[in-house]
Amino acid sequence: MAPILLNCMENEHNDYIKQQVQVKNPYLDTMEEDILYHFSLSTKTHNLPEMFGDIKFVCVGGSANRMKAFAQFMHHELKLPGIPEDIKDICEGTDRYCMYKVGPVLSISHGMGVPSISIMLHELIKLLHHAQCRDVVLFRLGTSGGVGLAPGTVVITDKAVDYSFRPQFEQVVLGKVITRSTELDEGVANELLQCSSSQNIPTVIGNTMCTHDFYEGQGRLDGALCSFSHEEKLEYLRKAYEAGVRNIEMESTVFAAMCRVCGLKAAVVCVALLNRFDGDQITSPHDVLVEYQQRPQVLVSHFIKKHLGLVV
Amino acid sequence: MAPILLNCMENEHNDYIKQQVQVKNPYLDTMEEDILYHFSLSTKTHNLPEMFGDIKFVCVGGSANRMKAFAQFMHHELKLPGIPEDIKDICEGTDRYCMYKVGPVLSISHGMGVPSISIMLHELIKLLHHAQCRDVVLFRLGTSGGVGLAPGTVVITDKAVDYSFRPQFEQVVLGKVITRSTELDEGVANELLQCSSSQNIPTVIGNTMCTHDFYEGQGRLDGALCSFSHEEKLEYLRKAYEAGVRNIEMESTVFAAMCRVCGLKAAVVCVALLNRFDGDQITSPHDVLVEYQQRPQVLVSHFIKKHLGLVV
Repeated sequence: MAPILLNCMENEHNDYIKQQVQVKNPYLDTMEEDILYHFSLSTKTHNLPEMFGDIKFVCVGGSANRMKAFAQFMHHELKLPGIPEDIKDICEGTDRYCMYKVGPVLSISHGMGVPSISIMLHELIKLLHHAQCRDVVLFRLGTSGGVGLAPGTVVITDKAVDYSFRPQFEQVVLGKVITRSTELDEGVANELLQCSSSQNIPTVIGNTMCTHDFYEGQGRLDGALCSFSHEEKLEYLRKAYEAGVRNIEMESTVFAAMCRVCGLKAAVVCVALLNRFDGDQITSPHDVLVEYQQRPQVLVSHFIKKHLGLVV
Repeated sequence: MAPILLNCMENEHNDYIKQQVQVKNPYLDTMEEDILYHFSLSTKTHNLPEMFGDIKFVCVGGSANRMKAFAQFMHHELKLPGIPEDIKDICEGTDRYCMYKVGPVLSISHGMGVPSISIMLHELIKLLHHAQCRDVVLFRLGTSGGVGLAPGTVVITDKAVDYSFRPQFEQVVLGKVITRSTELDEGVANELLQCSSSQNIPTVIGNTMCTHDFYEGQGRLDGALCSFSHEEKLEYLRKAYEAGVRNIEMESTVFAAMCRVCGLKAAVVCVALLNRFDGDQITSPHDVLVEYQQRPQVLVSHFIKKHLGLVV
């Protein structure tokens, strides 16, 4: 009977591990202290399981102000006690990122671009691991340029693709380039799409192109450098559209790749601030842009409330 | 005589153009309005020549707090009237970057990583162009990991190199990869080195490796993901050292490449917070790190004061 018992235990152990946030680093648990430098947190100076053990949803976005506003919005939506304005930045010891905790929801800013969000994700995944969190879902809530979409449309990412429309992320490890898959969780994406209809928010599921700059890489004619014509720009955008790309931003591939490697369910939800076929500059009035930026927040908030049993 | 006269005028015109900040975009001057979206500035709503026409030195760095502290430090060093604490963030309409003006010095934050600094540089170079600035020198003041250097050593970048130690930057333009040179101004680097001896700051000139992440790309063993051994890490660092690399950071290649294309004199001055041969985590006490971070500021401040004739 012994082998059967062992198998049994192994399965249980596997399920247990599966639910827990997985780091893929054999050295980590041998370290006496882990300083999460860019969060200004450490395993020695902070009780991470006590501070973060109940986290079930992590929402990340580029702008610090926006992620603070999202935390305050969630505080209101979850009907938590206290005043939303009193929520404190957990990373106040540094200005690299901001972090707010609202019940089981963590709201964190990540700056702009793949390298900036990648530092944050390494330290976030280590934080969730140290805090022994389980069954965590990650959302990136962002802004983007739409490809053939009306401004204000929300795009839930099917596949995060690179500048050649491939669903992959190239990571340099010790001077060698390796490739990681950027597939996201289909179930979470479909559930978010369902939320959009009940919330009356114009939403599509489509591919999201992730670039490493805002101007030349996205085919903008209004940067300090531009070596191509209006027609060449449109041709590139048309090719992107044909490859299923509906919006362009700057973080989705590494977000998808790292979450996938660590077994974390993840979704990317970005609003399109403009239709890139119509122009490059973001000219909408400030209040219109603010309302657009709230749309991914409303969608994800509805998803969270559903999962907490607060709405049907 | 006509051809000679024409030649003459062309030369004068070339010199004139040389001194002015050059954008490399034929469309820019045909635009009715240019919105510098991530600065929350625009050619229509702001008088850029009046606001910025006298700028001669632009200092950029990752952290918003650090670049504010640098602006206040420069205010004191240049003996300007008023209180340093009153200096206002010119980009207060956005939280993407911070910008402070102190006499002929502009201090701007750029976040972390190549994409983040690249957006800032596009809009900065356009700003300097719209403001008709001339003879501008750019400095990146940063923090970095040292390669075979004692913590606190300042590295003035000779060549900014990529993960394969090549002095080049790969830029994607409409889905195609192009390569740009990352050579920096030798004269400015040597002058900065001279400043270091009078200021008693341990300083070397060496190559700076620019990576797109902080963990796997820099060979750290303490990220959420790590697939290599301690020995493989050391081998990579040794190879980097042999290629002349003395520090590792995350912005220098695109900074060097864009300044070079636009004919701007530029230098990268970063302090090493640790020696990567000895470890990965930044464990020095807060006050020690603060003092280290002031060293590039003191060097660049001395350079600026020399050029303004305030010191010999």
